[in-house]
Amino acid sequence: MRIICSKDLLVENINIISRVVSSRATQPILECCLLAATNGSFKLMANDMEMAIETKGIEADIIEEGSIALDARVFFDIVKRMPGDSVEIHVDDKNLALIKAGKSEFKILGMNSEEFPPLPEVEKSDVYNLPSLELKNMIRQTIFSVSTDISKPVLCGELLEINENCVRLVSVDGFRISLRKLDFNNNGQSAKVVIPGKTLNEISKLLSVDAESTTSLYITDKHILFELEGCTVVSRLLEGEFIKYENMFSKDAETFINVDRSDLLECIERSTLISKDSKKNPVKLKLTEGHIVVTSNTEMGASYEEVNTEQDGPDLEIAFNPRYVTDVLKALDYERVTMEFSTALSPCVIKVEGSEDYKYLVLPLRLRN
Amino acid sequence: MRIICSKDLLVENINIISRVVSSRATQPILECCLLAATNGSFKLMANDMEMAIETKGIEADIIEEGSIALDARVFFDIVKRMPGDSVEIHVDDKNLALIKAGKSEFKILGMNSEEFPPLPEVEKSDVYNLPSLELKNMIRQTIFSVSTDISKPVLCGELLEINENCVRLVSVDGFRISLRKLDFNNNGQSAKVVIPGKTLNEISKLLSVDAESTTSLYITDKHILFELEGCTVVSRLLEGEFIKYENMFSKDAETFINVDRSDLLECIERSTLISKDSKKNPVKLKLTEGHIVVTSNTEMGASYEEVNTEQDGPDLEIAFNPRYVTDVLKALDYERVTMEFSTALSPCVIKVEGSEDYKYLVLPLRLRN
Repeated sequence: MRIICSKDLLVENINIISRVVSSRATQPILECCLLAATNGSFKLMANDMEMAIETKGIEADIIEEGSIALDARVFFDIVKRMPGDSVEIHVDDKNLALIKAGKSEFKILGMNSEEFPPLPEVEKSDVYNLPSLELKNMIRQTIFSVSTDISKPVLCGELLEINENCVRLVSVDGFRISLRKLDFNNNGQSAKVVIPGKTLNEISKLLSVDAESTTSLYITDKHILFELEGCTVVSRLLEGEFIKYENMFSKDAETFINVDRSDLLECIERSTLISKDSKKNPVKLKLTEGHIVVTSNTEMGASYEEVNTEQDGPDLEIAFNPRYVTDVLKALDYERVTMEFSTALSPCVIKVEGSEDYKYLVLPLRLRN
Repeated sequence: MRIICSKDLLVENINIISRVVSSRATQPILECCLLAATNGSFKLMANDMEMAIETKGIEADIIEEGSIALDARVFFDIVKRMPGDSVEIHVDDKNLALIKAGKSEFKILGMNSEEFPPLPEVEKSDVYNLPSLELKNMIRQTIFSVSTDISKPVLCGELLEINENCVRLVSVDGFRISLRKLDFNNNGQSAKVVIPGKTLNEISKLLSVDAESTTSLYITDKHILFELEGCTVVSRLLEGEFIKYENMFSKDAETFINVDRSDLLECIERSTLISKDSKKNPVKLKLTEGHIVVTSNTEMGASYEEVNTEQDGPDLEIAFNPRYVTDVLKALDYERVTMEFSTALSPCVIKVEGSEDYKYLVLPLRLRN
């Protein structure tokens, strides 16, 4: 293989695939990235066996076709620090790669490209075209309540549910549920799969913020393929039955409040400043006509805050792990939220005021006194 | 004690003293900062027993004089996140502090201010007025070769030597020496003390970048006092005899090269990209008329680079721990440096081209082959 490529273009594509490389892989080949100059096109690929990523064809002068697997960190570091505008990569038949730019030359020994695990094959039959920016927001607004408890692997991912006219993304971690819905015309196809949280995390970073951009999804039994602007990502899906979340949102709420999102967020965040462990030190909300009193009591001291509200229904005193509430409030971009309560021991539901597209459920903590 | 103070002003002063607070102190009082509203002036103070810092008087409405020691992290966090523009601090006779802004109130229990270690007293007799920006640069350009070997405590500091017409700052770590000299009219006073590296590190962050600013130094047997723009810092001095560095700069150099600082820096930095341990993988310099060939050979691969030079004297092959050379090259702000060599096993001296104010000595590594 022998190619000459613009350094900036190469760095740009390295940045795309670098998220997927394992730094402490069980096999050396998984710490590598693949450089492939085949069929007149030059591409980079990485694969950590959970997800695989392949760039689109990179503009390059292909003098001799071929491919090589190179230690990803070393290759990335060298290319990024090379002098000048263009980089030449020349691989001999012993997998020795020469990387050259200006008066700088590096020789690194690579591995046979045939050892590199290929991108899983995904049949491109049914396609779902989603607006990239909306998908990015949906992930951001739900990813925080993906479970980290590996004894229930299916909850370490998010449920993607596509129906005739909408798409839902749902995460559940045992203490809370995050649900984001998007209306979307879908020609009658439907799908229901669980995507690993790690995949969604990386996908959300790769998704374009351009309002015009679209991302294509292809789904099989075992895999999901994301066709993004600069690359293609294939991830395995999680197996098992996802929790039936629909019935958990109770319909017997009695107290409803509307509140300024950032006011409440700042209050609750401040209350955690005198607490070392948010599980042990709940934040207490006392709902009463016209405002919430937010208090906390810890070994370090006490805090007292007031936030104005519009309240409908009886007064209530309830306590939460503060992080569970702030995670939700931070994820929402809207000015006002609605909170629905029934009893001090029942879950609270948080929504965007006037919308059913955002629904969060948070379990309360039992108050000691 | 009861004061009302602008939040921004308080945060500004918190940022000044926060560098000195121990986060894992042996005694709880050392994790505190002192708030003192006495003699019509409000000040903050911190003390980690190696150095102590006191702000200048902070503009505040002092309703009742008094003082209190508060857990520094908690106090800092609360003030920084308080709403509104002004903060009220009210301490009762049981050391309970009420911190209040808008509708937010925090109560935290403090400690008696008398338990707080006072600023060591330093007699302000002889004063040395140094330009702040120059002092800041001098520290930056020498601090990296302060020893971290606590078995030789005196080398964990820098020698400050003030003579009639110049001031020198010197650090020595067993493998290299950094010496920075500044011409400076001093009315015949002289001093020779060793200041802990940690103190200089913090001082350099506090020093003004304003070219007009001056910093006053007062020195006693045990302490040094820095009178900075926004605060006063007192540090203990290190005891013991500093290494006699003067004779270590050999005068028998035979090969002299002038080289572009950033070209050489980039080359050597790149050569370390294929090395996990800079001590085991030296960078080799081959000096020959007109250029240096910079090479490295590691288990990961090999690099080859050329840098143009002006050479005077015989060719030479010499190897270094690359970090020892890059530390020096990074510290210098000048475009060209001079390097002086005698043999492959003798130290190399690095200077700014045409100046004797910057002198660095770096020991070479013995080449294996």
